[in-house]
Amino acid sequence: MSHSYIAPVELEKAYRLLNHGPTVLVSAQHGDDCNVMAAAWACALEFKPAKVSVVLDKSTKTRQLVEQSGYFTLQVPCYAQLNMTKQLGTISKLDDPQKLEHCGVELFYQEDLSSPLVSGCIAWLVCKIIPEPHNQSAHDLFIGSVVGAWADSRVFRDGHWHFQDAPKELRSLHYIAGGTFYLIGEEVKADI
Amino acid sequence: MSHSYIAPVELEKAYRLLNHGPTVLVSAQHGDDCNVMAAAWACALEFKPAKVSVVLDKSTKTRQLVEQSGYFTLQVPCYAQLNMTKQLGTISKLDDPQKLEHCGVELFYQEDLSSPLVSGCIAWLVCKIIPEPHNQSAHDLFIGSVVGAWADSRVFRDGHWHFQDAPKELRSLHYIAGGTFYLIGEEVKADI
Repeated sequence: MSHSYIAPVELEKAYRLLNHGPTVLVSAQHGDDCNVMAAAWACALEFKPAKVSVVLDKSTKTRQLVEQSGYFTLQVPCYAQLNMTKQLGTISKLDDPQKLEHCGVELFYQEDLSSPLVSGCIAWLVCKIIPEPHNQSAHDLFIGSVVGAWADSRVFRDGHWHFQDAPKELRSLHYIAGGTFYLIGEEVKADI
Repeated sequence: MSHSYIAPVELEKAYRLLNHGPTVLVSAQHGDDCNVMAAAWACALEFKPAKVSVVLDKSTKTRQLVEQSGYFTLQVPCYAQLNMTKQLGTISKLDDPQKLEHCGVELFYQEDLSSPLVSGCIAWLVCKIIPEPHNQSAHDLFIGSVVGAWADSRVFRDGHWHFQDAPKELRSLHYIAGGTFYLIGEEVKADI
């Protein structure tokens, strides 16, 4: 898979990758063990320094890897990855050790960072955990400092999304329930 | 304004009102003093008991009212409210005491609840703060327990959004930056 469209995003503008509320994929790796899960409950938390929050249930393999490694990647999947996203949110690696192969996930890495990224997504935020034992235990809530951000320049450039000009396959997914998602739609501008 | 379309939503399904990542309006009231602001950083946090999180900057009037009253309402504005939503996120009541009148906000109340709701939105979640002094201070992050939820039955019924069948004016807004929003788009279903 070609990564030629991947361009860095200023950390101060990384919140814009999540601001419209897309469903994300959460990936993490500890040693040779890695996993990816889908999550709807991820959110920007601070502009500068850029921070994010994500809810990771105690039953997930990904959470174990996040706790072991201290890092996670949030990435924004697109319409071309609809079935993969659904599967990544349904199958647990604790039940199916070959989950990633069965879901068709291909991983890659950015220089100097050991947290894996999922190929074919439209944005990526590599995050270092800010330890918050109470939040993690009581609310399954993890807070991360964004240490690197990238986006597919066909849909995000100059600090803004450009879904209008790009193929429908690159639109972000917004999960509801039961395998039903919405694609992000039309751009509108307030005129006041 | 008619409220005849407003129907209660089971608390266990209230997360679905936020799951697709819409921009929200946050309202709060203490005594006779009330305010409404726009926020992009709101998220579901737990299915049952239903909980949500929202980031409220220390500089906002709304945050003061949330802290004083112990309650806030998250509501989902729609395309018909595009300019109002932009203004509610731009003007501070600390600068303009007539903010709500100037933005054209009409409030209403659900029985037994003193937290105000904004007319014309498509979903509402009235929330009671779960006090978390560290999160509120260090991260501007407020956690709320959902005590009541309602939606406009033209776009949300039987526990699901039905944007496809409804007028475009009722689509949710997803903020990026600089007055630019996206409308929620097409429904798609995973077939795996």
